[in-house]
Amino acid sequence: MPRIERTASLSWEGNAARGTGLMTAGGGAFTELPFSIPSRIAVQQGKTSPEELIAAAHGGCLTTSIASELTKAGAPPERLDVTALIVMDEVQGQGHLVVGSEIDVDARVPGISQAAFDAAVAAADASCPFSILIRASASVTVRARLTA
Amino acid sequence: MPRIERTASLSWEGNAARGTGLMTAGGGAFTELPFSIPSRIAVQQGKTSPEELIAAAHGGCLTTSIASELTKAGAPPERLDVTALIVMDEVQGQGHLVVGSEIDVDARVPGISQAAFDAAVAAADASCPFSILIRASASVTVRARLTA
Repeated sequence: MPRIERTASLSWEGNAARGTGLMTAGGGAFTELPFSIPSRIAVQQGKTSPEELIAAAHGGCLTTSIASELTKAGAPPERLDVTALIVMDEVQGQGHLVVGSEIDVDARVPGISQAAFDAAVAAADASCPFSILIRASASVTVRARLTA
Repeated sequence: MPRIERTASLSWEGNAARGTGLMTAGGGAFTELPFSIPSRIAVQQGKTSPEELIAAAHGGCLTTSIASELTKAGAPPERLDVTALIVMDEVQGQGHLVVGSEIDVDARVPGISQAAFDAAVAAADASCPFSILIRASASVTVRARLTA
């Protein structure tokens, strides 16, 4: 796989309590999504946050890794439905950290055995760069169910 | 700061080469953003990717941390302009990994000294949970310029 570079640009105006930021994807997928500190640590109010974005990133990475492993195993998925949950918390003496990522997968994969499915999910989690990144300092839990 | 949970949901249909996924933010900031493996590793074609999302996440985290540190120092920013670049690459024997994150900040902060600005940026980088997360297994570079 080649070296990949991806970018985002952001702006911010104002102090911590009342300031607002805007973030834009380098590739154009989203433009000027608002974020703020109150919506990051309290009620979201429709704004995004770094935590929500890494939930989407880890979920997206694992989804493509599972699709790849199932394809390699000769049983490409008809459909995967995935939820990703990121937990941030205070850690004694270390401040506020990403402490965990929990991914749930419902998979419709015609003609695969439970054992081959479990092996594909385990291989995907072991190779997904975001599982590796997060696991270096936090917990990663992947639950996958074969629904057909 | 409280415990924070943030979520995303995703779906995927199809094999590795031709399948497409959609990702939706739990808080509603974005809905059904498309992603795919070809657009992740080659031309983006307007789609998003885990790499782009963590660029936005790290940029957003550091932006709020810098705004907080400057506010604490009595000099809230008028404006911050930030770019975030994530690099993924093959690492011998370990597969494809996030290897670096590079953040550039242009800051308009009335009335602050260069020394106080540099101290605020360093404190922000040291406490930003995404700088800590990425630095556990990759390089993080922060360049910040005081423009006024």
